[in-house]
Amino acid sequence: MPTYAALIAYDGTEYHGFQRQVESQPTVQSTIEESLSRLAPQPVTLLGSGRTDSGVHAVGQVISFSLAWRHSSEDLHRALNANLPEDIAILQLKQVSSSFHPRFDAQRRAYEYTVYDGSIRHPLKRQFSWHVNRKLDEAKMNQAAKYLLGVHNFATFGQPPQGSNFVRELFMAEWTRSDCDLTFRIEANAFLYRMVRSIVGSLKLVGEGTWSTEEFVEAFKAQNRHECGTVAPPQGLCLVSVTYKTLNWSA
Amino acid sequence: MPTYAALIAYDGTEYHGFQRQVESQPTVQSTIEESLSRLAPQPVTLLGSGRTDSGVHAVGQVISFSLAWRHSSEDLHRALNANLPEDIAILQLKQVSSSFHPRFDAQRRAYEYTVYDGSIRHPLKRQFSWHVNRKLDEAKMNQAAKYLLGVHNFATFGQPPQGSNFVRELFMAEWTRSDCDLTFRIEANAFLYRMVRSIVGSLKLVGEGTWSTEEFVEAFKAQNRHECGTVAPPQGLCLVSVTYKTLNWSA
Repeated sequence: MPTYAALIAYDGTEYHGFQRQVESQPTVQSTIEESLSRLAPQPVTLLGSGRTDSGVHAVGQVISFSLAWRHSSEDLHRALNANLPEDIAILQLKQVSSSFHPRFDAQRRAYEYTVYDGSIRHPLKRQFSWHVNRKLDEAKMNQAAKYLLGVHNFATFGQPPQGSNFVRELFMAEWTRSDCDLTFRIEANAFLYRMVRSIVGSLKLVGEGTWSTEEFVEAFKAQNRHECGTVAPPQGLCLVSVTYKTLNWSA
Repeated sequence: MPTYAALIAYDGTEYHGFQRQVESQPTVQSTIEESLSRLAPQPVTLLGSGRTDSGVHAVGQVISFSLAWRHSSEDLHRALNANLPEDIAILQLKQVSSSFHPRFDAQRRAYEYTVYDGSIRHPLKRQFSWHVNRKLDEAKMNQAAKYLLGVHNFATFGQPPQGSNFVRELFMAEWTRSDCDLTFRIEANAFLYRMVRSIVGSLKLVGEGTWSTEEFVEAFKAQNRHECGTVAPPQGLCLVSVTYKTLNWSA
């Protein structure tokens, strides 16, 4: 049975997160598995590079699955997109080695978090950004974010999905502004549960002047979840890419 | 009773257009009127610069209304936004002359229409763009769009909201591309009903090669609604600004 990897995008607004739940609430995984199972003689399960929370979006999530399929990958790609709802899309699909694992083989993940800091809420951006109704100082937030780079214990900012290893390596953590749209790009080998939203919520305290950079760094170094500032809401978050040594997507 | 003008934005996805309907289906107008009426001793009706269709968005719609309000404009602005659902926002509000009419006093309207021409649909853009799954040639579309500039009879592209005058003056009609996102900006003194979506649908035929520029111009000059190409779907359309001689908003 051939194994496939797929690059997928989804609007997480209507889903209870990526990962299949014991209850029957719709998740991204269960929705794709149902579509796959309609194309196969038996139920199909898939693996993802990592879970995303309820309301979180993706344009670069990676999944894999094995499927008894006798036609081309292109045919499978088309059939799947025709079967999926409009808020999920398979962007690319290719056959891979059966040993490929989207989570364990991932070398780097990149997320983006969007804040809108106009004084009045923006109705067209409400499902894809966090509205903060006072101006944030991105220079201060960037100054604080620099302390996160490198190998650190991130216990202040999240829980490991499994085990008790809180150490992660951060490669990038940077805010850029375009008018009232602030985008935070963060890249790491892997992330703890709620880590990006916890970092964004804490940096927001720096940006609005509630915390100094020193207070942010103190909270970080405390390695204590209770020292986290606030947790930013899910709709501003988007998983933008996952990098593998053995898997490349076309540009 | 003081008269107010307001600059408003809305995500049209959940509304049956801007204009109040005889039936009880929610429209942008009826939703704002209900919020206003909660702040006033009697029901309030409002005027808009023009109606937008079901599913069409706005970031620059202008409305006016009279209201018995004893506090400041700032207080009214805050109270209204607190009363409105998340998909409608009052961006700015000011007191104006009781003679102000958002439709008759408007000198110019600007719309933007967004097309996404990636080969696979983009789930995060589906409520704000038209997905066309083959590459459009924006240079060709711009060449054809130039013929629309100036004073013309636009009967091919729409119906007047009232009366039988099909003549409008177009000041701008131009496509720009950023990766797979094509934005069409169009400005006129006023628009016919369905005019922007009809022009976009017809220019799309040029962009994909179904129509030559000459065929587009022939259809336009026929002044016949049956010669229109296709009508683009509503979700790509956004009313971005309305210009008045007597009313200016802060930048």
